[in-house]
Amino acid sequence: MNKVDLTEIDGGVTAAGGFRACGFCAGLKASAPDLALLVSDFPAAVAGVFTTNAIQAAPVRVCREVVAGGVARAVVINSGCANACTGADGLARARAVVASAAQALGVDPRQVLVCSTGTIGKRLPVEKIEQGMGPAVAALSSAGGGEAARAIMTTDTVDKQYAVSLEIAGRRITVGGMCKGSGMIAPNMATMLAFLTTDAAVDAAALQRGLAAVADRTFNRISVDGDTSTNDTLLMLANGTAMAGEALLDESHPGWAAFSEAVEAVARELSHKIVRDGEGATKFVTVTVAGALTPADATLAAKAIANSMLCKTAWFGGDPNWGRVICAVGYSGAQVDPDRVDITFDELAAVRGGQMAADVAFKDLEAVFARKAFEIAVNLNLGEAVDTVYTCDCSYDYVRINAEYMT
Amino acid sequence: MNKVDLTEIDGGVTAAGGFRACGFCAGLKASAPDLALLVSDFPAAVAGVFTTNAIQAAPVRVCREVVAGGVARAVVINSGCANACTGADGLARARAVVASAAQALGVDPRQVLVCSTGTIGKRLPVEKIEQGMGPAVAALSSAGGGEAARAIMTTDTVDKQYAVSLEIAGRRITVGGMCKGSGMIAPNMATMLAFLTTDAAVDAAALQRGLAAVADRTFNRISVDGDTSTNDTLLMLANGTAMAGEALLDESHPGWAAFSEAVEAVARELSHKIVRDGEGATKFVTVTVAGALTPADATLAAKAIANSMLCKTAWFGGDPNWGRVICAVGYSGAQVDPDRVDITFDELAAVRGGQMAADVAFKDLEAVFARKAFEIAVNLNLGEAVDTVYTCDCSYDYVRINAEYMT
Repeated sequence: MNKVDLTEIDGGVTAAGGFRACGFCAGLKASAPDLALLVSDFPAAVAGVFTTNAIQAAPVRVCREVVAGGVARAVVINSGCANACTGADGLARARAVVASAAQALGVDPRQVLVCSTGTIGKRLPVEKIEQGMGPAVAALSSAGGGEAARAIMTTDTVDKQYAVSLEIAGRRITVGGMCKGSGMIAPNMATMLAFLTTDAAVDAAALQRGLAAVADRTFNRISVDGDTSTNDTLLMLANGTAMAGEALLDESHPGWAAFSEAVEAVARELSHKIVRDGEGATKFVTVTVAGALTPADATLAAKAIANSMLCKTAWFGGDPNWGRVICAVGYSGAQVDPDRVDITFDELAAVRGGQMAADVAFKDLEAVFARKAFEIAVNLNLGEAVDTVYTCDCSYDYVRINAEYMT
Repeated sequence: MNKVDLTEIDGGVTAAGGFRACGFCAGLKASAPDLALLVSDFPAAVAGVFTTNAIQAAPVRVCREVVAGGVARAVVINSGCANACTGADGLARARAVVASAAQALGVDPRQVLVCSTGTIGKRLPVEKIEQGMGPAVAALSSAGGGEAARAIMTTDTVDKQYAVSLEIAGRRITVGGMCKGSGMIAPNMATMLAFLTTDAAVDAAALQRGLAAVADRTFNRISVDGDTSTNDTLLMLANGTAMAGEALLDESHPGWAAFSEAVEAVARELSHKIVRDGEGATKFVTVTVAGALTPADATLAAKAIANSMLCKTAWFGGDPNWGRVICAVGYSGAQVDPDRVDITFDELAAVRGGQMAADVAFKDLEAVFARKAFEIAVNLNLGEAVDTVYTCDCSYDYVRINAEYMT
């Protein structure tokens, strides 16, 4: 990938030109913002990547339809209710939310997306959202990215925003975004909800291809607890306001690589924010598996380590337990030669040829595992394939949060 | 399966005639028994089922060789050290333990099995085991099953034994066993270590076929944390002392079905004891998936529920969170029609056609989840395949045990 000069800027999902947003208390949650609006002042090319769970929430179905149309003007997002496993009634309620927003904004309902996050199975209280829609539209602001990011939180403890600017074809464009997610996070469209915006002018089909590729390298490579949600949605809107009169970006455009890198930088940073805010997480762990026979093997082994409860609890305890790491590699399904496995913890070679390295001091290993962030690098020494997954430890608080987060 | 008159009896792994055992403090653990011997007074047909982890401990390799020979006289089992990821040196140490036991017992070393459980990567302290071998042999007793069961415990909080007697061909025979296991338990040869004995006379090849089938229905259908160990071993010894002069049991023998049922009863009870003693477990949960298109789909969906951290923590919290159950079914990889999924918690129909049943009271669902044991029955309503997995919840204590169980 090209090295592009990306400048980190404030503003999150409204950092790009021509986007406004807000957060609002519609009453779905007792006393916190629970409704966000994100609006593009001009029709925007839209792309989306959705959960692979066979059970898909009603709003996911609506989003798929809008994305198929290629153009969007607005996204309505509520927390406090996932509107999943709600059948035809749930779909009707999602459409009612779309209709309400389209009317309040004066836009085509076929260009309005809807996303929901919260408890599965509850009926979406459409009336509350409808009543909140007027005030929400009035509150829209080009500085509203932060409010919107806070309104979509569930068990998140911090809001998650990021934006960069870069130059393409002599124009300064911006790619920004926000996301939410803390639990029910597994590396297969893992975001719960993420929203990227750009004022670049982008061909819708190219945007979709690019977004899918980026998602596979970022949101699909993180894990908190191995559970893939029914509502995971990544949307990107490109309204072109920073590139008026320019040719649309697609793979043949000289600026495409730089644009793609900017999108990936925002997606990577947002996805890592989810891991850092993983439910109960105290440590950020990068798991890299190299030397695999196939890319699929590298992914299998990295995900097995990232999702192993025994590894995660050892990390929480600060225990450099390489036995649990190699055990996870062994049952991952990847082709493994036990006598060729090397494991490095940050800079320290802990395991060589499947056994503990003779020259490594346990105290030094402990020092690595005391860090807030460290890397576990496994080399299978069988081939050339590499993959990296980002995950967190599992603490008492993970259990507390999920034992108490009642239906 | 035939209904056979099985009588539960005491004695565990030494309940069957011609078996002696003991537990001994060899000094691998600070202050607990850590060495068990199990001896058949006569050459016994032997069968074994082993971990599917690509990383296999040294003792697993030795056991495979003995089982291939078809005849065994003794098993040496140590806790406190898994002798896994120890290379050629670990294999030599396992063989040294075998040689020591063979000499002390005056038997052929090719008929001595060795099993280890404990921390991965540590060198097996062979000298301590060799020094303990003489006193251990002297302590062997036909009432020693309990001592042996206690000597093989690691994070187990209770010893695990079971035995039944039944009549075959006019003779009263016994099938007994012991096992250990509490963490690193996943449904793919999940036992950690289990030992079955019988005084029935059984053809070795038939014993192996029968044991593999039973393991698949019992030990391979339990889960504590989804981690498959490097040392999992299930061994069965049949010494024939209760059937002197009788034809060997095999699939063509009229008593085979009864014998198989007795073996399965012992294996099922022992495997359930592992789940009940799962690290930190407070609840025993039976997960049944019916109506699947294929048996593989039923297994996928049942295991996804059983291994879901979000389900397990909800169960710990007493939360009848059916959303997490249906979410796990959705990402399991099984073929699912969201609108046809039914879920029952014990006798209560909670979900019908993918949505919460209108006539179920939340309080009644909560009452089910307050029980120490309950069943989650999912019907996919797509086909005829069924599978059942036994699992437990995930509590603070699971995290504590595994954060503190240091390398």
